[in-house]
Amino acid sequence: MSVEVIPERSGTAFRLNKGQVLTVIDPKGEQVADLLAFNADDLNEVISSGRTLDYAETIRLTTGHKLYSNRSGVMLEIIQDTVGRHDFLLTPCSVDTFHHFYPDQPPHRGCFGNLAEALAPYGVKEDDIPVAFNCFMNVPIDGETGELKVLPPISKAGDRIELRAEMDLIIGLTACSAPDSNGGSFKPIHYQID
Amino acid sequence: MSVEVIPERSGTAFRLNKGQVLTVIDPKGEQVADLLAFNADDLNEVISSGRTLDYAETIRLTTGHKLYSNRSGVMLEIIQDTVGRHDFLLTPCSVDTFHHFYPDQPPHRGCFGNLAEALAPYGVKEDDIPVAFNCFMNVPIDGETGELKVLPPISKAGDRIELRAEMDLIIGLTACSAPDSNGGSFKPIHYQID
Repeated sequence: MSVEVIPERSGTAFRLNKGQVLTVIDPKGEQVADLLAFNADDLNEVISSGRTLDYAETIRLTTGHKLYSNRSGVMLEIIQDTVGRHDFLLTPCSVDTFHHFYPDQPPHRGCFGNLAEALAPYGVKEDDIPVAFNCFMNVPIDGETGELKVLPPISKAGDRIELRAEMDLIIGLTACSAPDSNGGSFKPIHYQID
Repeated sequence: MSVEVIPERSGTAFRLNKGQVLTVIDPKGEQVADLLAFNADDLNEVISSGRTLDYAETIRLTTGHKLYSNRSGVMLEIIQDTVGRHDFLLTPCSVDTFHHFYPDQPPHRGCFGNLAEALAPYGVKEDDIPVAFNCFMNVPIDGETGELKVLPPISKAGDRIELRAEMDLIIGLTACSAPDSNGGSFKPIHYQID
């Protein structure tokens, strides 16, 4: 498939069949893409940060790691990753997070609003949006104090992560809308399905 | 209210009204209690690790921190805490996690199964069980590598955490069933509502 473009501060949703490979590309560098996955045959099975981190025994997910569902099913496997720094702790930015972190800026519906709109035609409800796998998002944790920071991604132009579907999925994917996630500039995200 | 006992490897559920204070007590030390919260008036509003960690900017939640819902509503506030080490990254242990981590032991339905049974009469479905706030669970993260470990809690006999309800809630609470969470021995959890 040719490369598809998610314009800055927007999102999309699509079907990804078992065995297909989704490549998420950061075309300009230092941009974040929030990724959600639902079982296409039963939307109650959804990507789970808690199951995934428990099984992986690390918060630094990269090539070889599997992303699990709330039912402990393998949804996706990371088969290539040129960055090695993604986040699986935080929920997509929303109107509420804009009010909290950027009170002086006009609020944006954020990745949460973009995902909700893109996933609605597939039957996903807003309340069912969980913690996303945030491709390229750079959230270091201080092991001593537990403090977390949202820093600009370390991804450079052309960096990518490839994920193979291990079941038929509905995917939600964004080009992130939160200033802190990408160093204050908004950029598109590219993706490709093979 | 008098002190209630959750026997080892079991769970319970109850209503906690706005303004009431839930005290979770580790009576023998080094035991974990998984805590879930749902809006009593709308079960689609549920405790969210992702929102909470995002707003708190730390994974080390303690006195003064608020536990948020998927709608960014404040569900609970931690008003006292004699331990200061809890986990909000991992999902409740389940049959699947027992198969994964303890293949040589008879599998147990775990906190997940205990919560599912206890919450079912309130209308909560198994698939809707998210990442729990795991009282006293000790999950240090290596800031450099991202590796996480499940170590015995640092809680001593009589240690407690007090949480005030900021909305009417249905609470699920367990005495954890996973050997690694509590140093290999199973113990009860006590709680009190005031």
